[in-house]
Amino acid sequence: MVNKIEHIGIAVKNIEESNILFEKLLGVPSYKSEEVQSEGVLTSFFQTGTNKIELLMATNPESPIAKFLEKKGEGIHHIAFDVDDISAEIERLKSEGFVLINEVPKKGADNKWVVFLHPKNTNGVLVELCQEIK
Amino acid sequence: MVNKIEHIGIAVKNIEESNILFEKLLGVPSYKSEEVQSEGVLTSFFQTGTNKIELLMATNPESPIAKFLEKKGEGIHHIAFDVDDISAEIERLKSEGFVLINEVPKKGADNKWVVFLHPKNTNGVLVELCQEIK
Repeated sequence: MVNKIEHIGIAVKNIEESNILFEKLLGVPSYKSEEVQSEGVLTSFFQTGTNKIELLMATNPESPIAKFLEKKGEGIHHIAFDVDDISAEIERLKSEGFVLINEVPKKGADNKWVVFLHPKNTNGVLVELCQEIK
Repeated sequence: MVNKIEHIGIAVKNIEESNILFEKLLGVPSYKSEEVQSEGVLTSFFQTGTNKIELLMATNPESPIAKFLEKKGEGIHHIAFDVDDISAEIERLKSEGFVLINEVPKKGADNKWVVFLHPKNTNGVLVELCQEIK
């Protein structure tokens, strides 16, 4: 089972402008920016209680975020759940009929192993599972 | 400022089927179902750590959820932040240039006062603020 919402990922066009916007909205500044070259994204994190908001800007036209922005425009991109044992969760979810976009966890932002579930089996919601790398 | 993500609202077509799906996904069953007649929605709540997932199904064709499903299909509908003093937050956000869909808090699901910010000022994200009714 999942522990909690770890973060909500939001696709934005201009992360500098959105950092200012979300600081006003949430009342706290971004505490970290990090590039994930393999995914072609620049991220920015805000802490809201025990959860985070992750802004995502594409760094190249092949980035999944560039394609999302082109198709849907700015907005919520994914919901990430924290899990203790990502391998066990992958097996559990596969046995329940869910389809993973990547079956082998990848190194994501913020020191995490991450996998994504295919939104066709999750009511259109792009779901990420993440586990802290120890 | 906001305390935490209170819940994520997800628009679904068939809440009975989605209850089964999200129980498999999250590893916990829905703990509550509630109709909000003024909004034309039937809701279902799942607890994930200190946050909730709220499934939303339209109960009539004029419901905002019916219109969302027609335009965008199933998926994440809104993100709700918990606040201590919703009136103070409304004033703070207005002074920062945000636009509210309703300026006077409405009674929402799960014993909450709620307001929504217009997504045109929040990078396309429909943001709800909610405060527990005491």
